[in-house]
Amino acid sequence: MAYIDLTQTFTESMPVYPGDAPATLKRMAAVEHDGYENHTVQSGMHVGTHLDAPRHMIAGGKRITDLQPERFFGSGYLLDVRGREVIDADLLESVTLPTQAMLLLWTGYDSHFRLPDYYAAHPVCTEAFAEALVDLGVQLLGMDTPSPDREPFAVHKLLLGHEILIVENLTNLESLVFAEHFELMALPMKFEAEGAFVRVIAQID
Amino acid sequence: MAYIDLTQTFTESMPVYPGDAPATLKRMAAVEHDGYENHTVQSGMHVGTHLDAPRHMIAGGKRITDLQPERFFGSGYLLDVRGREVIDADLLESVTLPTQAMLLLWTGYDSHFRLPDYYAAHPVCTEAFAEALVDLGVQLLGMDTPSPDREPFAVHKLLLGHEILIVENLTNLESLVFAEHFELMALPMKFEAEGAFVRVIAQID
Repeated sequence: MAYIDLTQTFTESMPVYPGDAPATLKRMAAVEHDGYENHTVQSGMHVGTHLDAPRHMIAGGKRITDLQPERFFGSGYLLDVRGREVIDADLLESVTLPTQAMLLLWTGYDSHFRLPDYYAAHPVCTEAFAEALVDLGVQLLGMDTPSPDREPFAVHKLLLGHEILIVENLTNLESLVFAEHFELMALPMKFEAEGAFVRVIAQID
Repeated sequence: MAYIDLTQTFTESMPVYPGDAPATLKRMAAVEHDGYENHTVQSGMHVGTHLDAPRHMIAGGKRITDLQPERFFGSGYLLDVRGREVIDADLLESVTLPTQAMLLLWTGYDSHFRLPDYYAAHPVCTEAFAEALVDLGVQLLGMDTPSPDREPFAVHKLLLGHEILIVENLTNLESLVFAEHFELMALPMKFEAEGAFVRVIAQID
């Protein structure tokens, strides 16, 4: 059994959506001086690797705390979409997904995570792609980019409106390329909120 | 397969260690007014259900980001210590633990979580108990109290000095009482810090 971590590290300062307040992790005490170490985090919910629950964009939708733990586990599927600026439904044509799949889009764009263009130039999914995911019964869509779409966030609304969870800012998806099969765990912090930091780990037999 | 959530919910305001800054989760935007919902968290690492890595009290010790994912999974064991003010090594005498056990202390004290005495009157472990855990090869100690000890934190230092992880502020341990066997997952957020919020879920076949 091997565990593959797909989570970005939350460091002293983090890239945030343009216009959002800075996200910081500050050391407030150190073992050498204080006898213990402690950090303080200040951050929105959509920073680093995180999970969007329906309430992020759907009025009356479920928050993280409304999701049963069963929702955080499933059979994963890696879709290689490297080199695509637009991720469209044709990419799903020759694909056989597991039941209630957790689908991961491997764009390779995580290499831009701390670059200035990360939020500006990422690949996006079409609405037709999102509709196909609804039809295929996908339960979670994850990606190594900041978002599956841009304003007005039609893909977000379509997926969240069908209670398909979204995980953004993944990394290290290349580690899954030789796995014939993997199980995915995406465990969000239990925040009473529309989203939360999440630890995402793939398990390979 | 059943999943049992052992994690406290992180709400608008949280109990904190006496003297620490308040921990808050504030709604900054709402779907009805803004088209989306977003919350901001401000908190130390040792609030709510969280994991202490060695660096919390050991100079040069591992931080969360130094722990391999394998460390977050293991066979669980529930030790019923309800009614005890002091948790001593004699409680382990008739116990057969799984290899590299994740040992959970069920005190029932999580019913005090939001009461004024939560940090003042919780049960504590003796150093002899902690030494026995080292001898038994336990890999993680979790409890439904704020801490296994009080100042000067001899139990913390003994456990963390042997790289035994500590999970504090668990809840819902009574749900495990009829499980003959359970697997435990304690996935901390990937903070470059000495501790982190953690989602703790038991898996029962």
